[in-house]
Amino acid sequence: MAERQVKIGLVGLGTVGCGVAKLILEEGDRIAAKSGLRLELACVVDKDTKSSRPVKLPKGLLTDDINKLLKDDSIQIGVELIGGTDAARTIQLKMLETGKDVVTANKALLAEHSNELFNVAHRHNRCIAFEASCGGGIPVISSIRTGLAANNITQIYGIVNGTCNYILSNMTSKGEDFSEALAQAQKNGYAEADPTLDINGLDSAHKLTILASIAFGYEIRLEDIFVEGIEEISKDDIRYGGEMGYILKLLAIAQKEQDDHISLRVHPSFIPEQNRLARVDGPFNAVSLLGTATGQVMLYGRGAGMMPTASAVVSDIIDVALGNSTNTFGHLLLKPRDKTKSLIEKIDNLQSRFYIRLMVKDQPGVFAQIGNILAENSISISGILQHEGKGPENTVPVVITTHPARQSNVTTMLDGLDKIDTVCSKPVCIRIVNVPEI
Amino acid sequence: MAERQVKIGLVGLGTVGCGVAKLILEEGDRIAAKSGLRLELACVVDKDTKSSRPVKLPKGLLTDDINKLLKDDSIQIGVELIGGTDAARTIQLKMLETGKDVVTANKALLAEHSNELFNVAHRHNRCIAFEASCGGGIPVISSIRTGLAANNITQIYGIVNGTCNYILSNMTSKGEDFSEALAQAQKNGYAEADPTLDINGLDSAHKLTILASIAFGYEIRLEDIFVEGIEEISKDDIRYGGEMGYILKLLAIAQKEQDDHISLRVHPSFIPEQNRLARVDGPFNAVSLLGTATGQVMLYGRGAGMMPTASAVVSDIIDVALGNSTNTFGHLLLKPRDKTKSLIEKIDNLQSRFYIRLMVKDQPGVFAQIGNILAENSISISGILQHEGKGPENTVPVVITTHPARQSNVTTMLDGLDKIDTVCSKPVCIRIVNVPEI
Repeated sequence: MAERQVKIGLVGLGTVGCGVAKLILEEGDRIAAKSGLRLELACVVDKDTKSSRPVKLPKGLLTDDINKLLKDDSIQIGVELIGGTDAARTIQLKMLETGKDVVTANKALLAEHSNELFNVAHRHNRCIAFEASCGGGIPVISSIRTGLAANNITQIYGIVNGTCNYILSNMTSKGEDFSEALAQAQKNGYAEADPTLDINGLDSAHKLTILASIAFGYEIRLEDIFVEGIEEISKDDIRYGGEMGYILKLLAIAQKEQDDHISLRVHPSFIPEQNRLARVDGPFNAVSLLGTATGQVMLYGRGAGMMPTASAVVSDIIDVALGNSTNTFGHLLLKPRDKTKSLIEKIDNLQSRFYIRLMVKDQPGVFAQIGNILAENSISISGILQHEGKGPENTVPVVITTHPARQSNVTTMLDGLDKIDTVCSKPVCIRIVNVPEI
Repeated sequence: MAERQVKIGLVGLGTVGCGVAKLILEEGDRIAAKSGLRLELACVVDKDTKSSRPVKLPKGLLTDDINKLLKDDSIQIGVELIGGTDAARTIQLKMLETGKDVVTANKALLAEHSNELFNVAHRHNRCIAFEASCGGGIPVISSIRTGLAANNITQIYGIVNGTCNYILSNMTSKGEDFSEALAQAQKNGYAEADPTLDINGLDSAHKLTILASIAFGYEIRLEDIFVEGIEEISKDDIRYGGEMGYILKLLAIAQKEQDDHISLRVHPSFIPEQNRLARVDGPFNAVSLLGTATGQVMLYGRGAGMMPTASAVVSDIIDVALGNSTNTFGHLLLKPRDKTKSLIEKIDNLQSRFYIRLMVKDQPGVFAQIGNILAENSISISGILQHEGKGPENTVPVVITTHPARQSNVTTMLDGLDKIDTVCSKPVCIRIVNVPEI
């Protein structure tokens, strides 16, 4: 079969961009043998045309002028890898308007503007492919869209931020403080100089917006997701939770009930140590999907990094060039916003188990006080842990795990506990999540 | 967007066939909303038209006449689910010749006749989709073909037979004999009345033939695969291996070296208990793929059963109807047999670590004898386990693990050991496999 040439324009020659250029330049023969497609890097745009980079581009390819790419009608696929939501949005829109299909890893942009971008793409009969936006090298988007297409996917549990997972894994295995573990992650290249978006949970929420949208078929927005980060996690709680059989992970969770209501949240979660997701460590990611026909399917692999993410981008390029993405994307019809919004459950309605740690004065009557406040809020105790010996300022840590309780009741209870004299610092509250393994 | 009707003819109304009919009949609206396709079951063929089944078909749909299906030109997709290699081959060929795309779960047929079938399909500009042939509900074929398409996949490690995994898991966790565990598997519906193809490793080899062919792009045949089953596994070896930190699994392994030589084998394998694959239990399957760009990707889920397999079949139907499978299948060009055959490594050349158990007479000088035979064959000992106390007939079990050694040397060594008077029964030899986690 004759090879078909496919010209590609790449915007953003950062880490992932270099990986994409490398794959296209170095693996061209293998990709051609496999797909019948000869990928050609026709134009690379970056505002920095001077710095040395880990890939050697053919002369004349790199430019700081986006119009060179946009005006070249022979370029069929535009790859946007600059990130962010402003310039990237404009560039993707212009790519679509000038007749190019778009491949991107930009989760923030998709989480905030997918509706606009998808509409423009549909109007121009083009497609947007975004495997690289979630889970790096793990083929989770294509699995949801094709391999699991016959399923009604009802639950998603994801460890989708490698930075947080690296930090939490080190806090767990080495007993490091949050700040030590973060510094270590930065030193080893697993965290950005400014890690805010990772550790505050927003990056995971961006990814969950995308995963839940395509899995459930709803137009879901970032604002629908309840988000808590890992900034305030203490190594003490990881240790106490560990003693009770739990491992702490930052989970992105989406659940669809039988009445079509959906619950969307990103928060630190204690999961039973035997659970498969508890064993996803360091920079690895994993997504567990529950389908009505398949039961549980889990996908595991490297969630970030130059080559894993580049692998997802180039796989998308191949899929787009073969025409498959256009076919599939054409049917990516999300239930519109006005029909979706009322289906999003408020976090107050969440039923969950909870881990609660109180620093209490070591004196008689404290347990009675605590017990009363729990009872008043209909919260039932599942386990208690109190070690002998004293903490700072004559306080001792008391850890309580609850049976399933309503979030709003727990919030009221925490307020109540916070007001007692004998509870000496703000109660710590972490949700316990039972990820189904069926 | 208007719905497009897609007529489907189904051959084989067994367990999976009933699951497929159920999904098409009951999930039609959801599939239409997601894909724009209205799947219609136009004809169901089975030689048994009388038995009651777990799905209620519309009247007049079920027939024992295959020609009704073949002659109906409005049927675009033929689903072959009768299994076996004779009638199924004829039916698939006729489906292709009458202009129908084929969806199948038939791993035995593909493992033995994929070349013929693929050629006929290409000639008629049709496609064959076979996600359901490997790993049941796990989207492993689509991941290799699309989500990981940019990768040079160099290694595959799969637990791809639920029956064997269920048996080995129970032998490990409950200390059951092989025969007890098999009876239990049959009682619980995890093993057929005739489990031969499962327990002798051939079913896993069928699946490995398919996985390795599409991952490596070679025309691989069943005869290329070295196969050992689990029939002779004793609970004692599972226990001794466990004491040394290993879990026993039936692994399907494909490795491609840098010089393009490939090693293909299915055999019981001791893997380190910390390894992710060691924790795949019961009827679950998992496939670990090593890609040059992604590193390790693992897919995990239910490898068999009515609805998981039906999920894969119907996902394929959707993909075929959208036109994606045809695009991708058109480029499924395998390096032809004459260029492949010489690249297949003989098992004799395998470098592996080994677990060896000998039942030896409890008398002086035995270790010296054993040690000499190992040394003569350049085999270096990594660990030794001998418990105090006696076995039957004044024998004691001695377990030796080796450093990496050549299979041919180990075979010679085993022959040598078998001939010593003080070694009282045939030596047990199980390969130790280090599945990379990178």
